Amino acid sequence: MTRPTVWPAPHARLAQRPLPAGAVTVTGGPWQYRRRTNARVSLAHGLEQLRRSGTIANFARLGAGGSGDGGRHGHLDAFDPDTKNFVDSDVYKWLEAVAWARVAEQVPADVLEAADEIVELVGGAQAPDGYLNTWFQTLDPSERFSDLRYGHELYCLGHLIQAGLAWQRVRGDDRLLKTGRRFADLVVERFGDSDVVCGHPCVEMALMELTRETGEPQYARLAAAMIDRRGRGTLGAGRFGSAYYQDERPYREMRTLDGHAVRALYLAAGATDVATDNGDGDLLAAAWRQWEAVRRSRVYLTGGLGSRHLGESFGADYELPPDAAYCETCAAIGLVMWSWRLQLTRTDGAIGDLIERAVHNGLLSGVALGGRSFHYTNPLDVHDAHPRQEWFEIACCPPNVMRAIATLDQLVATETDDGVQLHQYVPARIDAGRGRVLTVETGYPADGTITVRVLAAPVQPWGMAVRVPAWSAQRFAVAVNGAPAPADVADGYAKVRRVWREGDAMTLTLDLAVRTVRADPRISAARGTVAVERGPIVYALDAAVAGGGDPAFVRLQEDLDAQPVPSAVPGLVDLDVAVLRERLRDAGWPYLDTADPVAGVAARVRLVPFAHAGNAGAGPLRTWLGATPAGG
Amino acid sequence: MTRPTVWPAPHARLAQRPLPAGAVTVTGGPWQYRRRTNARVSLAHGLEQLRRSGTIANFARLGAGGSGDGGRHGHLDAFDPDTKNFVDSDVYKWLEAVAWARVAEQVPADVLEAADEIVELVGGAQAPDGYLNTWFQTLDPSERFSDLRYGHELYCLGHLIQAGLAWQRVRGDDRLLKTGRRFADLVVERFGDSDVVCGHPCVEMALMELTRETGEPQYARLAAAMIDRRGRGTLGAGRFGSAYYQDERPYREMRTLDGHAVRALYLAAGATDVATDNGDGDLLAAAWRQWEAVRRSRVYLTGGLGSRHLGESFGADYELPPDAAYCETCAAIGLVMWSWRLQLTRTDGAIGDLIERAVHNGLLSGVALGGRSFHYTNPLDVHDAHPRQEWFEIACCPPNVMRAIATLDQLVATETDDGVQLHQYVPARIDAGRGRVLTVETGYPADGTITVRVLAAPVQPWGMAVRVPAWSAQRFAVAVNGAPAPADVADGYAKVRRVWREGDAMTLTLDLAVRTVRADPRISAARGTVAVERGPIVYALDAAVAGGGDPAFVRLQEDLDAQPVPSAVPGLVDLDVAVLRERLRDAGWPYLDTADPVAGVAARVRLVPFAHAGNAGAGPLRTWLGATPAGG
Repeated sequence: MTRPTVWPAPHARLAQRPLPAGAVTVTGGPWQYRRRTNARVSLAHGLEQLRRSGTIANFARLGAGGSGDGGRHGHLDAFDPDTKNFVDSDVYKWLEAVAWARVAEQVPADVLEAADEIVELVGGAQAPDGYLNTWFQTLDPSERFSDLRYGHELYCLGHLIQAGLAWQRVRGDDRLLKTGRRFADLVVERFGDSDVVCGHPCVEMALMELTRETGEPQYARLAAAMIDRRGRGTLGAGRFGSAYYQDERPYREMRTLDGHAVRALYLAAGATDVATDNGDGDLLAAAWRQWEAVRRSRVYLTGGLGSRHLGESFGADYELPPDAAYCETCAAIGLVMWSWRLQLTRTDGAIGDLIERAVHNGLLSGVALGGRSFHYTNPLDVHDAHPRQEWFEIACCPPNVMRAIATLDQLVATETDDGVQLHQYVPARIDAGRGRVLTVETGYPADGTITVRVLAAPVQPWGMAVRVPAWSAQRFAVAVNGAPAPADVADGYAKVRRVWREGDAMTLTLDLAVRTVRADPRISAARGTVAVERGPIVYALDAAVAGGGDPAFVRLQEDLDAQPVPSAVPGLVDLDVAVLRERLRDAGWPYLDTADPVAGVAARVRLVPFAHAGNAGAGPLRTWLGATPAGG
Repeated sequence: MTRPTVWPAPHARLAQRPLPAGAVTVTGGPWQYRRRTNARVSLAHGLEQLRRSGTIANFARLGAGGSGDGGRHGHLDAFDPDTKNFVDSDVYKWLEAVAWARVAEQVPADVLEAADEIVELVGGAQAPDGYLNTWFQTLDPSERFSDLRYGHELYCLGHLIQAGLAWQRVRGDDRLLKTGRRFADLVVERFGDSDVVCGHPCVEMALMELTRETGEPQYARLAAAMIDRRGRGTLGAGRFGSAYYQDERPYREMRTLDGHAVRALYLAAGATDVATDNGDGDLLAAAWRQWEAVRRSRVYLTGGLGSRHLGESFGADYELPPDAAYCETCAAIGLVMWSWRLQLTRTDGAIGDLIERAVHNGLLSGVALGGRSFHYTNPLDVHDAHPRQEWFEIACCPPNVMRAIATLDQLVATETDDGVQLHQYVPARIDAGRGRVLTVETGYPADGTITVRVLAAPVQPWGMAVRVPAWSAQRFAVAVNGAPAPADVADGYAKVRRVWREGDAMTLTLDLAVRTVRADPRISAARGTVAVERGPIVYALDAAVAGGGDPAFVRLQEDLDAQPVPSAVPGLVDLDVAVLRERLRDAGWPYLDTADPVAGVAARVRLVPFAHAGNAGAGPLRTWLGATPAGG
């Protein structure tokens, strides 16, 4: 296979096919800003942290022929006796990020050198029979595969395979993939005919891709089996119950996603892979049903997921408190991974809308603009302080956000026999295959005009489809070569089918008026408040930017007066908004007669994109704001 | 001492002295309704449950000369390995309730007989040296006093002493008190000179009262020491940290209450006892400071306390989510016990206001109107179902609410050299001492007119002071013998000082207009919503009463139209309220543009007092309601 994709390799059963890695070159805007920082700063920072935490040394020690000793770092026993080592996966995710990042961005030479050495270390640590998990190999090799519930061995294998595929596809370097495949072969041999599943889904996606890469069916067969083995209580209840690791009921019978959010999303992504590759309509229908259900009542405005700190889990329908929100960065990443797989199965603008929202808000909030500190959780409201940290004891999120940013280009466009579909808008050059070469010129999302210019195309009719976000569905325009053009509008896309010639341009104009949104009243904690949005960007009141004390007292005026002002990041704007800073009468306790008028001081405050909150300071944050009038 | 009080026995240092047990006879209204049900139904129900759970058998087995066996019931090891047996205290609280209930109400003869036998069983179970805790005596006597953090031995002693005092004071039956005193003597001997404190405060209050009863100072001395021993980390961090059991910082330095709510409140009540009896102004100032701080930002509208299920604890300031609320019934009881002790130290209507609110709402919500089922937690909003239960594995709340209801008469009035203070309004006959005999005639809180009639009084001037609740402070009237009278209004009380003669009447008229209140915006989860109150009663929308689906969609109209209608309980009213039942546009996800108008159907719904919610069914409940307009 030439020029393979980031993930799912294209195949006949996909309604929309992904473009090869490198086919989309992001040339500007906020995503380029983030991708550059990621490649040039974050990867080196991650390397330093992985070294410092001992996570890389875990491999080196085994490779030296040793079997570990008490000086070993990077394990988590002090933190949580039930959690076995999954820190190998931090290294794999970082290696994957390094590979994808270098497709289009400059990665520092010392990072590349180190990555190259680490690939060797990983291979050197592998046991003779293919097993690889430094925790079990070091502390007690006899215990391997003894605790599938929390052991994370197959989870780590999943990330190893994904990293291996990236190194193979980007560099033609098959070392890591060989290591992964040897371990996968052991797992297939050992668990191919069993009832075994891993407590943390992940390997399913990887096994599917391994079959796509190698053509060998046994990996996909095991992945499919591991989807259908779930829900039989194999893992036992554990501390959080079977739903925590999606073992409460069969995947096909799940109405929505429950339990640990990242586990659930990775499982759903793997199931979607199985469904599409196997043409399993029943399984695909289950995935779509769950996606609709999650979107309907279990996703935050920011695209964040996971309402509960306990078990890092989804809550009940509409249980979406802004302050108690967990919204793990990895969950937003998992949502994007899953949604992307579904996007390949049918044309539905809701998918692209949600991917866009999640990336711009709840995913990119996971990393500081400077690229050196991270959020594990991304609550929408913060009462005191929620500083980003340089790293975490459980450091799944930082390398995960690195590989997510390194693969954002993948989300921009797909192609079909009939044409090209643009899902995400960034300044870019797109080689869509079959001789179709395009550029996207836009200041989006600061600006609402997106021009897709044809650099080259075959002389035959084909359709150019552009996503019309739901927030602009009633107010958008399509032009071809500067003149209004009739477009075929369906399923959230506007399509113009014609013979496109070099120099032709299709222009989509979206309405970027500032909007206020309110929550379904069943989202109890957000009733009576509003959030400010502009395009796909959710805005937040970051006290460190806005000053003036507790943002709880800020009330938006009924007729919103919000002026865009330049942001620190190209292609984004901040908002300058008229508000009332409420002054409370001191009643000695926190309940006030509504007959008392709301007193306050008119002021203007600066709102920033949610993903930028916490960059100026760690202080209080509000995404859901008070409104005037409110409270009767 | 003749005719002693329920708790704190009056002494010279109290600014307002409690009246003896039996001095106030409640003759009607909602409190009488509850007290009758308590005496006639709940006590028998509690006896049955205590028997069924094996809690009484724990004593019987030891008394038979045995040392327990595997068949022992009523322990909690299966539930929580760190929690030792505190179930003895359930029996003591029930015994205390039986004693106080029979002062004014008919308690079934078989309950009295059983109680009499249980008092014998308790005494019979006591170890020769005075020790008494059936858990340790049965399972491993060598372990006694080995785990003060979770052992609950001194906690149980506290309840034993309180029960013993009740039996002594009501019946002149000193058996239980002797048992308690023998154990107390052991504890004084063993821990009088040590750094020992109990992980669950309670014994401090009891030891103070034991000194008041016996005149022996060593008990009060130990109580005072145990207040000041706290905050030195003696108990270790445990699972929840030192703040969980108020061992993080010295009591005198605590700004507010933190940690496990019931523990904190019982400690504060004990500290207040120590402060008043010892004339310890510094300690009293600490208690007042904490009370003001709790009232300012850590109490729910219902008088409930404890925001977090984790550790059953207080949250941060203004962390008062209505749905995630813990609001343990015992915490509302603890608030009343503490507040009452503070009320005796100075004239401050805010105390009576909060006691009234807590009793009518968050305390009485703990028991069904039928008296046979109970809430452990009392959240203000319930999304699905929160049925009361007949009993609990940890059954602290049911017998606690029984003794609380049996002692409500205590809260009605106090006396000073200068006169009588009425704090709570119920139809009653009051023998206020010094020849002052009064009746209170009122339909309160259904009706706002309270008439205090003098049946007998000395021929000399004295002051009759009546509390003016804050919600009526701008709108109330005082009359004497039907004519408006000038009153001395200060500190939340209206006082008329004169020579009161037989037949004279002072009438207070309060404004019972229905009000809507909103929360301090720092209570994030309640922003933009309103609650409905009338007098001291917080109203709730109980879906089982109101019908029509999810109460989340109910919005109050801006100009509230609320008509009182009869309630199932005398002296209370339900409210018939005009609302809009919102109908949402299906946006596929739970966020809506505020430019979309709020559509809905005008309707009328029945609101019930919060304490009555869940009596018609366990369905959804909302105390904080949507408002129109809201959300900008």
